[in-house]
Amino acid sequence: MAEILNGKELAKKIRTNLKVEVEELKKQKKYPKLAVIMVGNDQASSIYVKNKSKACDEIGIDFEEYLLPEETAMQELLSLITKLNEEKEIKGILLQSPIPAHLDIQKAFETINPKKDVDGFHPISVGQACIGQDTFIPCTPLGIVRLLEEYKIPIEGKNVVILGRSNIVGKPLMQCMLKKNATVTICHSKTRNIQEITKQADILIVAIGKPKFITEEMVKENAVVIDVGMNRLENGKLCGDIDFEGVEKKVSYITPVPGGVGPMTIAMLMQNVVKATKME
Amino acid sequence: MAEILNGKELAKKIRTNLKVEVEELKKQKKYPKLAVIMVGNDQASSIYVKNKSKACDEIGIDFEEYLLPEETAMQELLSLITKLNEEKEIKGILLQSPIPAHLDIQKAFETINPKKDVDGFHPISVGQACIGQDTFIPCTPLGIVRLLEEYKIPIEGKNVVILGRSNIVGKPLMQCMLKKNATVTICHSKTRNIQEITKQADILIVAIGKPKFITEEMVKENAVVIDVGMNRLENGKLCGDIDFEGVEKKVSYITPVPGGVGPMTIAMLMQNVVKATKME
Repeated sequence: MAEILNGKELAKKIRTNLKVEVEELKKQKKYPKLAVIMVGNDQASSIYVKNKSKACDEIGIDFEEYLLPEETAMQELLSLITKLNEEKEIKGILLQSPIPAHLDIQKAFETINPKKDVDGFHPISVGQACIGQDTFIPCTPLGIVRLLEEYKIPIEGKNVVILGRSNIVGKPLMQCMLKKNATVTICHSKTRNIQEITKQADILIVAIGKPKFITEEMVKENAVVIDVGMNRLENGKLCGDIDFEGVEKKVSYITPVPGGVGPMTIAMLMQNVVKATKME
Repeated sequence: MAEILNGKELAKKIRTNLKVEVEELKKQKKYPKLAVIMVGNDQASSIYVKNKSKACDEIGIDFEEYLLPEETAMQELLSLITKLNEEKEIKGILLQSPIPAHLDIQKAFETINPKKDVDGFHPISVGQACIGQDTFIPCTPLGIVRLLEEYKIPIEGKNVVILGRSNIVGKPLMQCMLKKNATVTICHSKTRNIQEITKQADILIVAIGKPKFITEEMVKENAVVIDVGMNRLENGKLCGDIDFEGVEKKVSYITPVPGGVGPMTIAMLMQNVVKATKME
C-alpha cells in the first residue's frame, strides 16, 4: 500500500506559515492583494475562484474579484488588466482560464505586468523559468515539487515522466524537474507505446484530463505517482487521471484526488502573491 | 551504412535561397545588417565569427564586428548593446559567447532588443518559443529541425532523446521537438543508465562536448543520430560527441563533424537576420 502524498494537509501547513509571514509584512506596511479576473460563467472556474478567495481570506491577503460578462470585448479585458497593472495596491493579477473563445488569452497574459504575474504565464516569466532565473513559476508545477520535497522524495537522477505538455502544467513542470536534475521525458497525445514509457518512470506525473487513464499495468513497482487530473464522473464524483484503487497497491507514493495536487496549487498561488508583495 | 545528413550542402542551398530573398528585400529598400559583438580573444569564437561574416558576405547581409577587450566593464558592454538597439540600420545583434567571466552574459542577452534578438536568447524569445509563438528560435535547434525536414525524417510520435540541457541547444531543441509532436527525453550529467535511454531513441541528438561519447552499443539499430559536438583532439583534428566510425554502421542517418550541424547553425542565423529585416 502506497503512502498518500497529502496535499491538503501540507497546503494547510503552508497557509499557516504564510499567514505569519503576511502579518510580518503588514507590520512593514506591505499589504498583499490579489485581483482575480473571470470572464463568463464557467462553473468549474467559479469554484476555483471561490477556493482562491477563501485561501486569501484565511491568510490575510486582500482579494478583489472582477467578473466580466461572456460577451466582453478584448479591448475591455485589456483595459481592465492595464488598470490593475497601474493600481499600486494590487500586488498580483490572475486571469482565470478558460475565457470565452473570441478572446485571445495569450495576448491577455502578455498584458499583465510581469511583476504581478503570480500565475507565471507571461512569456517573460516562462522564459526566465526556462533559463533557470528566479521568477514566478506556475502554481501547479511549483506545488508538485513542494509536495515531493516535503516527503523527501529524491528527484536528482530519477526518471521523471510527464504526461501532458500544456503551458500551464506539463511544460513548466519539465523545467522544474530539469532544474532538480531529473532525467525528464514528456509524453502527449501523439506518443506511441505510452505504457513502455510510463513503466520506466521513477516519478510519473499525469496531467491529461482522462479519468483513470493510468492503470496498474502502466506503472513501475514502487514508483511515485502524481495525479494532476480532476475529472467529474457521470455519478457526480471527482476522479483523477490515475486509477487510484488499482495503482496504489503497486506504488510507493500516490496523490489522492481530491486532496493532492489541487490544494497545493492554491497554496503556491498564495505564496506567489506573498512573493510579489515582498518584491516591490 | 548510414546515409549522411549533409549539413554543408543543405546550408549552401539555404544560403543561395537567402541571397535571392535578400536581393528582393533590397528592392523594397530593406537592408539586412548584422552586428556581432565579441569580448576578449577566444580562439574558437574568432573562427565562428569569421564564418558568420563570410556567410553574410555571400548572401548580401551587411556585417559589423565589435571587438571589445577582455577587460571590458559590464556597463560598457551594455552601452554598446543599447547603442546598437537604437541604430535603425542594424537589424540583428549577436553577442558571441563565451564572454569573460566577470561579465553577466544573461544580463547582456536581456538588454538586446527582442526584435533584433537573432540568436533567440532573450528571455522573452525563450518564453515565446516555449509557449509555441512565432519568435526567434536559437540557430542550432532550428538547423537540426531543418536538416531532419530536408531528409524527410518523420518526427511526430518518435522518441527523441536529447543529451545536454543547455539554454543554447538542449532546452530550445526540446521545445522544437515537442512542437513537432515528438516524445522527448532530455538527459544530462546527472542522468543514470544513460545507455538504456539512448538505446530507445529513434532520433538521438548529442550536445555534451565529450569526444566520441556515443558508441555503437549506445544506439538503436536504424536510429537517426545528430551530433552537435565539436571537439578538438590532441592531434588537432575535429571530432563530434559521437564515435562516427562505430556508430554509422548501425544507424540509418548520421551527421558528420564537421559539415553537419555546424554549417546549418550559421545558415539559420542568416535566416533569422532576414526574418528580423522583414519584421520591421
